[in-house]
Amino acid sequence: MELWYTDQHTDNVRFSMKVEKELVSLESFYQKINLLKTYDYGKVLVLDGELMITERDEFIYHEMAVHVPMAVHPKVKKVLVIGGGDGGSARELTKYDTIEQIDVVEVDAEVVRICKEFFPEVSDSLSDKRVKIHFEEGIRFARGIYDEYDLIIVDCADPYGPAEGLFTREFYGICWKALKEDGILINQHESPYYEQHARSVQMAHKHIQFSFPYSTVYQCHIPSYPSGHWLFGFASKKYDPIKDLDDEKWNNLGIQTRYYNTKLHQGAFYLPNYVMELLEI
Amino acid sequence: MELWYTDQHTDNVRFSMKVEKELVSLESFYQKINLLKTYDYGKVLVLDGELMITERDEFIYHEMAVHVPMAVHPKVKKVLVIGGGDGGSARELTKYDTIEQIDVVEVDAEVVRICKEFFPEVSDSLSDKRVKIHFEEGIRFARGIYDEYDLIIVDCADPYGPAEGLFTREFYGICWKALKEDGILINQHESPYYEQHARSVQMAHKHIQFSFPYSTVYQCHIPSYPSGHWLFGFASKKYDPIKDLDDEKWNNLGIQTRYYNTKLHQGAFYLPNYVMELLEI
Amino acid sequence: MELWYTDQHTDNVRFSMKVEKELVSLESFYQKINLLKTYDYGKVLVLDGELMITERDEFIYHEMAVHVPMAVHPKVKKVLVIGGGDGGSARELTKYDTIEQIDVVEVDAEVVRICKEFFPEVSDSLSDKRVKIHFEEGIRFARGIYDEYDLIIVDCADPYGPAEGLFTREFYGICWKALKEDGILINQHESPYYEQHARSVQMAHKHIQFSFPYSTVYQCHIPSYPSGHWLFGFASKKYDPIKDLDDEKWNNLGIQTRYYNTKLHQGAFYLPNYVMELLEI
Amino acid sequence: MELWYTDQHTDNVRFSMKVEKELVSLESFYQKINLLKTYDYGKVLVLDGELMITERDEFIYHEMAVHVPMAVHPKVKKVLVIGGGDGGSARELTKYDTIEQIDVVEVDAEVVRICKEFFPEVSDSLSDKRVKIHFEEGIRFARGIYDEYDLIIVDCADPYGPAEGLFTREFYGICWKALKEDGILINQHESPYYEQHARSVQMAHKHIQFSFPYSTVYQCHIPSYPSGHWLFGFASKKYDPIKDLDDEKWNNLGIQTRYYNTKLHQGAFYLPNYVMELLEI
Repeated sequence: MELWYTDQHTDNVRFSMKVEKELVSLESFYQKINLLKTYDYGKVLVLDGELMITERDEFIYHEMAVHVPMAVHPKVKKVLVIGGGDGGSARELTKYDTIEQIDVVEVDAEVVRICKEFFPEVSDSLSDKRVKIHFEEGIRFARGIYDEYDLIIVDCADPYGPAEGLFTREFYGICWKALKEDGILINQHESPYYEQHARSVQMAHKHIQFSFPYSTVYQCHIPSYPSGHWLFGFASKKYDPIKDLDDEKWNNLGIQTRYYNTKLHQGAFYLPNYVMELLEI
Repeated sequence: MELWYTDQHTDNVRFSMKVEKELVSLESFYQKINLLKTYDYGKVLVLDGELMITERDEFIYHEMAVHVPMAVHPKVKKVLVIGGGDGGSARELTKYDTIEQIDVVEVDAEVVRICKEFFPEVSDSLSDKRVKIHFEEGIRFARGIYDEYDLIIVDCADPYGPAEGLFTREFYGICWKALKEDGILINQHESPYYEQHARSVQMAHKHIQFSFPYSTVYQCHIPSYPSGHWLFGFASKKYDPIKDLDDEKWNNLGIQTRYYNTKLHQGAFYLPNYVMELLEI
Repeated sequence: MELWYTDQHTDNVRFSMKVEKELVSLESFYQKINLLKTYDYGKVLVLDGELMITERDEFIYHEMAVHVPMAVHPKVKKVLVIGGGDGGSARELTKYDTIEQIDVVEVDAEVVRICKEFFPEVSDSLSDKRVKIHFEEGIRFARGIYDEYDLIIVDCADPYGPAEGLFTREFYGICWKALKEDGILINQHESPYYEQHARSVQMAHKHIQFSFPYSTVYQCHIPSYPSGHWLFGFASKKYDPIKDLDDEKWNNLGIQTRYYNTKLHQGAFYLPNYVMELLEI
Repeated sequence: MELWYTDQHTDNVRFSMKVEKELVSLESFYQKINLLKTYDYGKVLVLDGELMITERDEFIYHEMAVHVPMAVHPKVKKVLVIGGGDGGSARELTKYDTIEQIDVVEVDAEVVRICKEFFPEVSDSLSDKRVKIHFEEGIRFARGIYDEYDLIIVDCADPYGPAEGLFTREFYGICWKALKEDGILINQHESPYYEQHARSVQMAHKHIQFSFPYSTVYQCHIPSYPSGHWLFGFASKKYDPIKDLDDEKWNNLGIQTRYYNTKLHQGAFYLPNYVMELLEI
């Protein structure tokens, strides 16, 4: 059957996947949630019509969100994941024995329930005893927390609609306070390529720079995301993402990854000229 | 008007661009040639239905094909471009005053004519006096040439159909002979992501390794190509793409680029684990 | 979410409906069965990728298949429906108190089960006590039956794949034998418009003419079917579809219809020139 | 090349044709004009993104617009065509030797120029000496004309945008005055099927009834138009479209048609129940 899901990358660019089966279609209190089984991308989670993660390439996103800061910061014990109800970031974090607590703050309990039922490859670690799920808005949860986290990962949807508040200067200020004196903030940062996304990236980067002494972005290849060229923001109070990379230590941990490695870690920060100009790096 | 061009990335993945106008539609002796004006990618050259280059992101492809070897090899004087009838590789090459001769071997004269008329941003340098265009098959042109080129760039279509011969062991052997003792061979190498492409990459890489002592691949982000994750092969008789990079010298040349820089040069060779496994690097 | 089902009318014409939800997706012993909830056509039954009926316009198909012969034949008591597992033809037939027995011969029990569960508007009458469902191949069921039915309705898929046998001369001969001496045979006949369908129509019509003294086609407007211009074959041993129409009697029955009426009945047999030429009528 | 033109039948229904070549793409003073060569529908004229006519099925539209009134009215000498810059209605009208003058009032001279150059099969009769083309707005042209035409054909685009004024009560009043005492008005009337179109049909019919003693609609099958089920309005001061049909006379004229015949003429007025209810006929 010719059944196709389309993610509109821009008004004039469409990315379409052939669908084998719709596994979930419901409306939660917050959003429409769909889970599709596609032929080439496996299971695909769609929130309010926008592609969130695919079974086939989510490993790239989650490895890059987690292992980059983990290979830089020498002693992460407590992590806050804002968004991330699918469990992918938590899965990568639980690979580190030294982490003691992972707070996942997901506003929509239905997302967690569905990923637990239909996406166990991604969500299984949510039942790790170090992981605590808080069904609450990220900004509300983080406000009023001081000096507590070594690492905050903002693993959220695009900055249109519900996740909008997570791209504001106010929010980055809240994160700054919630981090310890050597904390790191990672946030998903859209693509630098299409104009609309590029402006979001630019704005988010400016807001972060306002609060954090170290602030840069790094890139990776995520085929299912608009343009395939995806950025994360790396902001920190103390550590430099390249100088403070302890590759020997990380490699000795023996953590299995399919995308990340400590060489690629460095390469991810070597950006194209047009991206550096966009961000005034 | 809702007029859309679709590039079928796989049987189950479609990438579609909204078309403003069709500028060219004809059939040459070798292939169907279309030139479309799209809303978000500008002009787009399509050969036999497959997207070749877009006005918007061709700079990434051509800069990465040319400046990577040029920043490594100390004294390139004579270059062979196989394919490349659009003129993009030649444009980047003509930025180097030290290059004395650029042979562009394009089988289809119509491609050159159309790019000259409709795609001057890409093709203008084809009229540089150092550029000689040969309307001939690449493999036939190169056969019987010995010890002549400092650099060969294989700038061709995908390895299905007419360009198939440019992905064989025989062809790489011919290139080896045509290169001087310190020559470099660059070839476009498809994406490592989708299975069909991945197998082409794997095969091409094996064939090249058979002939060349130094053989590796490097990556870049080309949004209009399948998966956006694109590879080039770097094969050489003598130079290592990272150790022999002379960044100071290259930066002193003052060449303007929008994607390439010498930091990114290094990062481009730091590949994801899954790509290294695919290529057994 | 942009989820679209496409029915490929020809290789070069696509008809696409936006999907709200997939209600059923399974594979029976005979075929793939999908039931989609669409925005503008309501529920849509799809077998092996091909659109069968839609909630929104199935009434046209089923009314035209049933009421045309019923308004011509003076005393229908026993009816055979070949295919029709959705129950739509049976629904229209059960509106006649004078009908005593309706044999529905559907090869695929899953189609019946799914329509009963998800498409009650169409299938409800399958539980009428005059309706007997036989899970068997139509041709096999009918073979060896003599002089038994007043009316046979061939309510099947397109003549590619499983339903192919229902468009052969042999099958029409079997129907002839199974009908009483004044019996009528109705069969769905594709569209005269697109070339591929037109040839099927032509062929089927020739085969029927071979067996039946009265043989013609009639038309209706079914928006969800290829070209929207749909034909049924009317073949009979004795009755003429227009001369023997007893409109007064039919109108006195008080049967509620949304498409059919006895004026339109006549108009349905007044075909365009190009259709008459195609069928040599 | 996968190049597809889509006509959005509703927000949730798309009709798409594969395009071989774009023949024309320009913007006139009034609208965007595109002429596409498609695989299955031949040349297709598109105005402001909406499909107007296709080479393959325009004969249905134009034959039904012209021959229905011509077979009813006994002595048409002077005809006004409002819109119809493609020349299709004029082509059918010039088949009648008794017609003396055909005024075609087309607002956009570019439409005429393009159809003359690229669509000669449709536009050729525009050079018949009885045809006078007036580049003017239809409503402005007709206003102030009294008792002059035997037949007016409103052959215009959909009632959204420029053609909106041609669906108002005021306009039908103007037509009434411009017609002789036994004049006939034909207007294209959209489809009764999709809700948005259905409301236009309903409204137009009400407005016409207000002015004309005889007012009804008739239908035909146009595969490339939304739903394939298309209506025309027939309004007249004196003649009944069925009682006054002089089939013998018309058939003696020996006019060649591919869709229309005098039997089908009658059938075209026998409407489905749901259409009669919509129009309160």
